Amino acid sequence: MMMDAMSEDMMAMDGMAAVDMAMMQACMDACAACEQACTVCSTQLMDCAPACMNCADMCHTMMRSMLRMQGMTAPVMMAMLDACIAMCQMCEDECRAHADESPVCAMCADACRACMDACMAVKEVMMA
Amino acid sequence: MMMDAMSEDMMAMDGMAAVDMAMMQACMDACAACEQACTVCSTQLMDCAPACMNCADMCHTMMRSMLRMQGMTAPVMMAMLDACIAMCQMCEDECRAHADESPVCAMCADACRACMDACMAVKEVMMA
Amino acid sequence: MMMDAMSEDMMAMDGMAAVDMAMMQACMDACAACEQACTVCSTQLMDCAPACMNCADMCHTMMRSMLRMQGMTAPVMMAMLDACIAMCQMCEDECRAHADESPVCAMCADACRACMDACMAVKEVMMA
Amino acid sequence: MMMDAMSEDMMAMDGMAAVDMAMMQACMDACAACEQACTVCSTQLMDCAPACMNCADMCHTMMRSMLRMQGMTAPVMMAMLDACIAMCQMCEDECRAHADESPVCAMCADACRACMDACMAVKEVMMA
Repeated sequence: MMMDAMSEDMMAMDGMAAVDMAMMQACMDACAACEQACTVCSTQLMDCAPACMNCADMCHTMMRSMLRMQGMTAPVMMAMLDACIAMCQMCEDECRAHADESPVCAMCADACRACMDACMAVKEVMMA
Repeated sequence: MMMDAMSEDMMAMDGMAAVDMAMMQACMDACAACEQACTVCSTQLMDCAPACMNCADMCHTMMRSMLRMQGMTAPVMMAMLDACIAMCQMCEDECRAHADESPVCAMCADACRACMDACMAVKEVMMA
Repeated sequence: MMMDAMSEDMMAMDGMAAVDMAMMQACMDACAACEQACTVCSTQLMDCAPACMNCADMCHTMMRSMLRMQGMTAPVMMAMLDACIAMCQMCEDECRAHADESPVCAMCADACRACMDACMAVKEVMMA
Repeated sequence: MMMDAMSEDMMAMDGMAAVDMAMMQACMDACAACEQACTVCSTQLMDCAPACMNCADMCHTMMRSMLRMQGMTAPVMMAMLDACIAMCQMCEDECRAHADESPVCAMCADACRACMDACMAVKEVMMA
C-alpha cells in the first residue's frame, strides 16, 4: 500500500518514469538491510567502525528520501545515489579487509555490495 | 577540543590538507542550522515540507560524517558534499517560492543557501 | 547472523535473559516498519504529519539501540521502550482519526499499534 | 525566529505553559552538543562507543521532537525526556570511567551531564 501511495508521485517526476516501484522497493530494502548490518558491525569496534557508522547514516537518509519522492528531483536523487554508492563502496572495502577475521564484517561487506548494486540499478534506469 | 581530536585524522586524509578546521567547523555548523530550520519549516505542512524533511536528513548525515572523518575518503566526502549541495539547492528553491507568505520559509531558504555555500567552500578547497 | 552476533551481549545484560532473540527481532522489525509507514504518512501533509515525523525518529532510534545492546542497560532500555510506546500511541490516535479519509493513515495507525505491541511484549518479559 | 514560530504551539499544549522558550532552546542546544560530543567520542572505538552511539541517536531524536511540538503531548514528551535522561546518565558513567585516559571521553561525559541537567530542568517545570 505504501508503494501505491508513492507511485503516483514517482510517475510525475521527470526522469523517473522508467523506474518501476519494484526496483525502488528493492533499493529501499537494500538500504535498510545495509544500515542494520553496518550498525551491528560498528559495535565490534574494529577499524571499519567509523566507515560503518557513516554508511549506516547515508543508507538511512537514502531510504527515507526514496519514501519522500515529492521532496526530490531526479538530479538530487542522482547525487544522493552517487553519495550512497561511494559510501557503500568504501565501507565494503574496509569490511572486506576484515572478512576472514570477522563473519560480521563479511556480512556487512555483502550488505554494502548489495546496496551499491541496488542503487546503481536505479541510477542506470534513470539515465537510460 | 573536538576539533583538536579531529584535526589529526583530517591531516592524514589525502586531499584534505588544505581544509582547515575552522572551515570544517563552519560547514558543520551550517549543516546543523539547516537541519533545524528545515525541521521547523516542515511542520508548517506547506508544499515545501517533503523537501525540507529530505534536506534535514541529508544535512544531518553530512554533519555527522564530518565528525567521523576516519570513516571517509576524499572522494566519498566529495560525493556527499555534492548530494548535500543538490538537496539544499532544491529545498531553497521550494522555500524561496513561499518566502513572501511565510517568514519561516524565508529563514529556511536562507539556511539552505548558507549550508550550500559552506559545502561549496569545503569542496573548492579540496579540489584546489 | 546479526542475531547470533548480538545474542551473547544480550545474555550478559541483567534483566534480559528472558528476552529471546526472536522477540527482539520481531520488535526491531516492527520499529522499522513503523518508521517507514510514518515517513510515508508524513508526506500527505495532514494534521498527523508532525506526530508521524516524531514517531519515525523515535522508532528508528529504538531499532538502532536494540542493534547496539552493548551500549544499553535494562533500565535505559525500559525508559526507551516507554518513550517509543507513548509516541506510537499518540501517533496511532492521530492517524486513526483520519483512517476513513486516508488509507495511508489507516496503514500508519496499524503500524504504530503493531510497534507498540511489540515494544510492550519485550517490556513485559523484561519485567517478569 | 524559529522560537517565535514554535512558541504559539507550545503555549497551546497542556502542561507546557510554564516552560519558557529560553529553557526549551537551552535543552535543544544541550541535546545537539551532546549528540556531537558522543559522535566524536564513538570514533575512538573505546568501550564506551556503543553507549555513545545510542546516546547520539536519542539526543538527536529528543532535539528534533522539541522542534516539532505539534506532534507531541506532554505525557509523550515526559517519556522521551526520561529516556534521554537515562541514556545520558549511562553514557556519562561509561565515559567518566575513561576520563583520565581520554580528554574526549571527559568532554563527552560533561556534555552528557549537561544534557541530562537541561532535560531534568524542562521536566521539573512541566511537573510543577
